[in-house]
Amino acid sequence: MPADRDMGRRRRSRGKGRIDGFSDGVFGVAITLLVVDLAIHPPGTALQQVLHAWPAYLAYTISFLTIGGAWLLHNALTEQLARTDPVFLRLNLLLLLVVVFLPFPTRLVAEALHNPADERVFVTMYGLTLLVIRLLGFALDAYARYEHLYAPAEEGEEELRTSQRKFLPGVIGYVITIIIGLFLPTAAVALYFGIAVYLVMPFRDVARLVFRGS
Amino acid sequence: MPADRDMGRRRRSRGKGRIDGFSDGVFGVAITLLVVDLAIHPPGTALQQVLHAWPAYLAYTISFLTIGGAWLLHNALTEQLARTDPVFLRLNLLLLLVVVFLPFPTRLVAEALHNPADERVFVTMYGLTLLVIRLLGFALDAYARYEHLYAPAEEGEEELRTSQRKFLPGVIGYVITIIIGLFLPTAAVALYFGIAVYLVMPFRDVARLVFRGS
Amino acid sequence: MPADRDMGRRRRSRGKGRIDGFSDGVFGVAITLLVVDLAIHPPGTALQQVLHAWPAYLAYTISFLTIGGAWLLHNALTEQLARTDPVFLRLNLLLLLVVVFLPFPTRLVAEALHNPADERVFVTMYGLTLLVIRLLGFALDAYARYEHLYAPAEEGEEELRTSQRKFLPGVIGYVITIIIGLFLPTAAVALYFGIAVYLVMPFRDVARLVFRGS
Amino acid sequence: MPADRDMGRRRRSRGKGRIDGFSDGVFGVAITLLVVDLAIHPPGTALQQVLHAWPAYLAYTISFLTIGGAWLLHNALTEQLARTDPVFLRLNLLLLLVVVFLPFPTRLVAEALHNPADERVFVTMYGLTLLVIRLLGFALDAYARYEHLYAPAEEGEEELRTSQRKFLPGVIGYVITIIIGLFLPTAAVALYFGIAVYLVMPFRDVARLVFRGS
Repeated sequence: MPADRDMGRRRRSRGKGRIDGFSDGVFGVAITLLVVDLAIHPPGTALQQVLHAWPAYLAYTISFLTIGGAWLLHNALTEQLARTDPVFLRLNLLLLLVVVFLPFPTRLVAEALHNPADERVFVTMYGLTLLVIRLLGFALDAYARYEHLYAPAEEGEEELRTSQRKFLPGVIGYVITIIIGLFLPTAAVALYFGIAVYLVMPFRDVARLVFRGS
Repeated sequence: MPADRDMGRRRRSRGKGRIDGFSDGVFGVAITLLVVDLAIHPPGTALQQVLHAWPAYLAYTISFLTIGGAWLLHNALTEQLARTDPVFLRLNLLLLLVVVFLPFPTRLVAEALHNPADERVFVTMYGLTLLVIRLLGFALDAYARYEHLYAPAEEGEEELRTSQRKFLPGVIGYVITIIIGLFLPTAAVALYFGIAVYLVMPFRDVARLVFRGS
Repeated sequence: MPADRDMGRRRRSRGKGRIDGFSDGVFGVAITLLVVDLAIHPPGTALQQVLHAWPAYLAYTISFLTIGGAWLLHNALTEQLARTDPVFLRLNLLLLLVVVFLPFPTRLVAEALHNPADERVFVTMYGLTLLVIRLLGFALDAYARYEHLYAPAEEGEEELRTSQRKFLPGVIGYVITIIIGLFLPTAAVALYFGIAVYLVMPFRDVARLVFRGS
Repeated sequence: MPADRDMGRRRRSRGKGRIDGFSDGVFGVAITLLVVDLAIHPPGTALQQVLHAWPAYLAYTISFLTIGGAWLLHNALTEQLARTDPVFLRLNLLLLLVVVFLPFPTRLVAEALHNPADERVFVTMYGLTLLVIRLLGFALDAYARYEHLYAPAEEGEEELRTSQRKFLPGVIGYVITIIIGLFLPTAAVALYFGIAVYLVMPFRDVARLVFRGS
């Protein structure tokens, strides 16, 4: 299909540089906005107030790791791109839309961890948002592979492959935790923390560092 | 006019890289700020509060698509630029000024969708802002063509041409919806959503994807 | 002094790319933060509330033009840079510190334009901030010239020269307006708007555009 | 260990460009968010209110200098990088997580400087955050050296060496000040200001500028 390949070449370098800059800006702001909602409230001494806000710190950390993890994937992904196309640019916008939305349910969860009655609804909303970020990150990667947007180079794909390998366990983890969260919302938050750490942690590299000497 | 061409060459690469970085920063922050105003309010159960905030989600999505669409145009536009000039840089600042302003009427519309009395004013203000963003995006493109700021390359213009083709329908749609909004503000918000989707959606590419197999 | 020149060469490309990205981020966020404080307040109909907020729109526009103008200068300046040095990077941080501070007095002026009693203090604070931004922008340019940080290229200096030519009138304008503001704060705000337009407007290019046909 | 070197080469350019853009975005937003919390409060005349907010200005300036200083180190560091690896990218995320957190204790200190009872807790929390930023900045540099991520070039390392030389005095200064802050929190804030200035100030270059003529 030479006509198609030709169209491909005509679209070659479209938007490659800007998609990085814009996405970095959005990721960077979304990750920073999480801290705007950190606050302490009476009653109690100053120390009690600071410690009592632990759910906010936890929700903040989970969301930070999730956005950070989405950025790591996005970074690995755009690095492999040889070109973009209109659909890819829109899928990317969709991913950013949900990333930017995350501080909102994060705030709700942080506020609700002391109000068990509301907790169930907010934790479910939070889990769904985390799941959709993961799905859209995968969709972006899958579309780029389907449309041959990646450069044929063999280098640097490790992060992408790790992300693909962790995709199914991550999604299964999210779905199970969303169901658990309907009954035990606080436990679900702890599990979301575990999933976030699992998805971000580079186990192989850490193992390599630890066992290098031996 | 060789003197003029010479002046042009002397201004060749001015501001090309920085206009991307700065504009990406502004677009990225403006698009993220939309979420800061998302909030839920009593009365009702947690679920009712979350669902009751639908106008905020709708206004947020329309504004996100509008800023995202403006960025797509901006991205395609600066990619074609061979150089910038002082007037272009100022027109760009003007566009950014209105893009950055959008979260404000978005917030007003989101708050007013439950207060029909105020709705008319805010929805009109919102529609005018959307219209001006579209007009300034077009002005930027028109100025770049008038002053021959684009590189002569034939590649990658598809997104610009699509944007130009959709310009007149978009403006007519906005003007009609602004008039409708004076009488039926809630209907106007639904129409703004439709326009935003129309302007961002790459119909050809989607059709290509869907009908490829057949 | 060959040793000095050699040290210069060793510092050649230090921080050139990053100073753009970081500064663009800060300028972009500062300019967007201005809109966060836009708000309307009862009493009155929705339309009256929107119109009654005009001082906020005015202060917002002046600050936008001032930060935008500082960015234009910064953009022209870093484009000419062949290298940076530690002092230049710190001077740049100092400029950014004051740019980032501007939304604060902007907010105070916007709130005070309806409270004449407080207005004098806030308008003075606002004028001093605008003046310091101008002085630091000039200091950055002066330091770069003094330390020969600019590339010897002849191209693209027009924006820098325009900025240098407008520096003294701008500073005199600010100082006079700060004094006027002690007695007539509302008039001073109008004058700050005039100065901002004067500093940003590219008169020559506009004249060239207007008189081209004749 | 040629296999190891080969793996290194395969990871060569991974994430180099994006780590700059994303980190610049996060640093830029975090530094700008500091100003969102600046506010004045009754009672008193406008002038008294503005002056009475001095602790907020001081905390804002210390945090600005700290984030600015971390950026200077980060800038010098990434400039020397030949490549990144998964662990480095995660260490970088960890540094950003704490940088983004800084506006929160800054706000608490600013509010507490007029409430001596709470001050001790918040100033300790503030000092610990400043210390952790310093430690993680150093860890990033140490890891890059340990894993040979730096390019072998001899140029431009001055800023990194200065930072390494100031590391131990800085950490000792922070630890002593944290202890002092348990008893004299206001004095500790003044000391944090001193440390921030010490860490950012390029003494050699200033001396060079001052004594050049003589």
